[in-house]
Amino acid sequence: MAQTTTEKIFSEFREHSVAEFFKKNQQMLGFSGKTRSLTTIIHEYVTNSLDACEEAGILPEVTINIREIDKERYIVSVGDNGPGIPEKHIGKALGQMLAGTKFHRYAQQRGQQGIGASGCTMYSQITTGKPVKVISRYDTKKISCEITIDLKSNSPQIRNLVKEEGDFGHGLAIEAEVAEVKYDKSSFGVYEYVRRTALANPHLQISLHDPEGQDHSFPRSSDIIPAKPVVVQPHPLGISTNDMIDFAHREREFKRVSSFLQERFVRVSAAKVDELKQLVPDVDFNKAPSELQWVEAEKIVKAIHNPNVKWIAPATDSVKPIGKAQIEKSLTNILAPQFIAVAERSPKIYKGGIPFMVEAALAYGGGAGKKAGDLSSSEVIRYANRAPLLFDNSGCAISEAVKAIDWKRYKLKNFEEEPLSVLVNISSVYVPYTSAGKQAISNDEEILQEIKNAIMEAARDLQSYLSGIRRDADRKERRKAVLRYVPQLSRDLTELAGKGSPKELEKTLLHLIETKYSSEIESEEGEAEAKNGKNGNGKEEKEEDEVEE
Amino acid sequence: MAQTTTEKIFSEFREHSVAEFFKKNQQMLGFSGKTRSLTTIIHEYVTNSLDACEEAGILPEVTINIREIDKERYIVSVGDNGPGIPEKHIGKALGQMLAGTKFHRYAQQRGQQGIGASGCTMYSQITTGKPVKVISRYDTKKISCEITIDLKSNSPQIRNLVKEEGDFGHGLAIEAEVAEVKYDKSSFGVYEYVRRTALANPHLQISLHDPEGQDHSFPRSSDIIPAKPVVVQPHPLGISTNDMIDFAHREREFKRVSSFLQERFVRVSAAKVDELKQLVPDVDFNKAPSELQWVEAEKIVKAIHNPNVKWIAPATDSVKPIGKAQIEKSLTNILAPQFIAVAERSPKIYKGGIPFMVEAALAYGGGAGKKAGDLSSSEVIRYANRAPLLFDNSGCAISEAVKAIDWKRYKLKNFEEEPLSVLVNISSVYVPYTSAGKQAISNDEEILQEIKNAIMEAARDLQSYLSGIRRDADRKERRKAVLRYVPQLSRDLTELAGKGSPKELEKTLLHLIETKYSSEIESEEGEAEAKNGKNGNGKEEKEEDEVEE
Repeated sequence: MAQTTTEKIFSEFREHSVAEFFKKNQQMLGFSGKTRSLTTIIHEYVTNSLDACEEAGILPEVTINIREIDKERYIVSVGDNGPGIPEKHIGKALGQMLAGTKFHRYAQQRGQQGIGASGCTMYSQITTGKPVKVISRYDTKKISCEITIDLKSNSPQIRNLVKEEGDFGHGLAIEAEVAEVKYDKSSFGVYEYVRRTALANPHLQISLHDPEGQDHSFPRSSDIIPAKPVVVQPHPLGISTNDMIDFAHREREFKRVSSFLQERFVRVSAAKVDELKQLVPDVDFNKAPSELQWVEAEKIVKAIHNPNVKWIAPATDSVKPIGKAQIEKSLTNILAPQFIAVAERSPKIYKGGIPFMVEAALAYGGGAGKKAGDLSSSEVIRYANRAPLLFDNSGCAISEAVKAIDWKRYKLKNFEEEPLSVLVNISSVYVPYTSAGKQAISNDEEILQEIKNAIMEAARDLQSYLSGIRRDADRKERRKAVLRYVPQLSRDLTELAGKGSPKELEKTLLHLIETKYSSEIESEEGEAEAKNGKNGNGKEEKEEDEVEE
Repeated sequence: MAQTTTEKIFSEFREHSVAEFFKKNQQMLGFSGKTRSLTTIIHEYVTNSLDACEEAGILPEVTINIREIDKERYIVSVGDNGPGIPEKHIGKALGQMLAGTKFHRYAQQRGQQGIGASGCTMYSQITTGKPVKVISRYDTKKISCEITIDLKSNSPQIRNLVKEEGDFGHGLAIEAEVAEVKYDKSSFGVYEYVRRTALANPHLQISLHDPEGQDHSFPRSSDIIPAKPVVVQPHPLGISTNDMIDFAHREREFKRVSSFLQERFVRVSAAKVDELKQLVPDVDFNKAPSELQWVEAEKIVKAIHNPNVKWIAPATDSVKPIGKAQIEKSLTNILAPQFIAVAERSPKIYKGGIPFMVEAALAYGGGAGKKAGDLSSSEVIRYANRAPLLFDNSGCAISEAVKAIDWKRYKLKNFEEEPLSVLVNISSVYVPYTSAGKQAISNDEEILQEIKNAIMEAARDLQSYLSGIRRDADRKERRKAVLRYVPQLSRDLTELAGKGSPKELEKTLLHLIETKYSSEIESEEGEAEAKNGKNGNGKEEKEEDEVEE
């Protein structure tokens, strides 16, 4: 029987693995451009090391070694003192996409997708045909092997597995041979990535041996291990009906919708459940969560958002910011600016009931900003959960927030040309990246606004500082102008009066001017303090109202 | 036995489906923001309709109907006269990610990933809990059903399947109920999407019934069905070692590397294979392709790139551009500008041996550009394979190319404020999007440069046009200035000479000026022609060299 057109078209119908998908769409994982591809590899391994150390309560030490073995072909190795990966999981952790410990957990970690390291394995494989080599030391074991991915089935292939028993300490070392990459000391390169990582992670000891043979070492400046990431329960505000259904249908422990709500979400008390019940009397809160229907869940979610139902904000301790003191320390150490302002906002809730927190810092003058000879320009240093975001800056909520701010209002005449570093870090259990390459934060209204508020908060401090500088400069200028006329004036006046000594009059006039200008300084400073200092809170609120309209 | 830290950490190890991944990363599919989410849905369904019609050789008719049933909750239906989807494939086509007819084929189609329509099913499901409803008419059948995705396993669930036999014609109708979306007539909304689709597809008849009850109809202006997409073989230039290994190890038909190379790639003759053999004498070209080793493939690929091996460019007929005449027609119909310049470049090769082609058009004056009252501003209308790209413009190679051009050189004083529409369409079997949302083209050097060249080519025509306008304006200005002095000069001269009539002298002077200025016009125009006209090619080459450095 002859095929019809429709049959013919659909004879081509196929199914594909996620590994094939990402092989075809490498750019989505950050593998586009030679410099970026190399930086992506470093990023994936370093973030995994930091996450693993944090989880195991270890002060991280990471060493990176990059050797050029041929034109645009490098051997990259990254070693850490983390907990290692057990034999049972090592294949999937490095050779299967969408497999890992992080995807399904509500905990603040740098990695999220379970793709990164396997993406590096894929990249090594498709550019050089080589497996990645791994040595994992954990418990009383040391295992080493070579890993590739079977792209058709998205499954790991392990070769040359060697196991040893003994006390080898702990840690993971990965070596990948990659081509179509380039080591470049630009602001999009590995060096800048490592420097920025050090800046946001004062507890990290990191060193880079670059392809030119140079060693760059960033010793830790703090011995405080960041707290272990906390697995948090979602907050009811922002939970979608779909999330509610998902959680409910997965519920095995609690037998009733009422107890399920109380136990699986934060800030839901028995009294709150009663409030919800009264708002949706036709939903049976005694039924099994697994029996909850979409329309019922939809009603509960609507009731949660009823303006009469007041909720306590989620706990602060689940988000782990860098911290004001640590940011100031890092900025001072690395940029040595003339002025630093840090704004540490309180956590907010992002849709899905997940708290997030924005920290913004402005460093001005000194080593802040980018330098090209005598010229300074501003730079924006973006982080998500302390991991630097070097690429895709134009689509990122942080860049958009910086752009949306009217910097002139904060005494910055031309933002682009100021010696200014703007640092923003977003801490959250779930960071909404725009792509799997994890280089830009999705431009969501809630997040964008919060970033703007944080930057503006820091900018107000900068404004006060700059106002002071400008006032001083203006006053000096005026004083200089007046002083210029004093000798001539003294001569003219004595001549006109026909008596007195010009020199003496000059002295008197100078004294008068000095007294006059210093009293002016005092009175102006008094005014400025009344405006900017004590009254700061009132001003802040006004400004935020304005931007929220 | 107590768990060690490492065991404890890895007890959380899980595997996930690609559907779970995209549920968590909806923004990667274009589901971020209410207006954008709705536009994404229309985009996915309309591109599928256009692809299917083109493949089946049908002149497409698409009707879109959007109804608001609650606040930010809509029923969207899209119907076409395409070939329909057979029962066997309908579940996977609309309810399984990474399944479809397009992913693995080297053919120019709008869709590529086998994700789009299933992504819409997922979005409907997670925002309203509703399945999508489908009616497919094909051959002698009509089937209707409801489809959802089991996100855990990324597999389709079909309900209420009804089959009928008879002559129902052909076509597909999909209805999805979605929430958290918004219909907005902005330049990022559905209306603009439909208008731009009509602009680039003159053979398409498309109508939109919007939520306000308005009908927008874009009748077709051409009865020419675009040629069926051709499945092309890759060109050896740009093929990576990994591609070579992939193709070779998949080879079942040809028994030797030499015949495999000749048959599976374009432009590889027996003579070319001999050239390659001489360059890599240690590779056995008689061995089975499936036996080809990485190092051998690497050597062959290097030989392919040897500058002494000359290759014929890939055939032009595999890329299907819109076409110069069609672009001019569309721009005239929809924008009615004062001037149109279209540059249709010859196809180039992108890495992977895939030809691509850039078309650029500039429409100036009249209805071109964006209008706000009396003010005009420029707009960039981006397409990939005739599908409009409305979002993510800042990260897109087209936007970057437009930005990188020194518009002043082309007589545009302030690019932003000109009444100018820049249209760019990239046609290729494989368009490297930056994300699965398919809204921006990856900023690859090869592609970026080619887009720049295309725009500059069109800009040179615009420059000539604007130079003409400016020259005319300048001349008129000068003439006016001189004329202003003629009466006074005539009076003064006759008075000074003490004889003659001022009126008569004025007449003589005016005659002189008219003759002088018209001869100047002629000679300037002659010069301009010699510079811009016949000598155009030489100029173009110089300019391209300059930008390639």
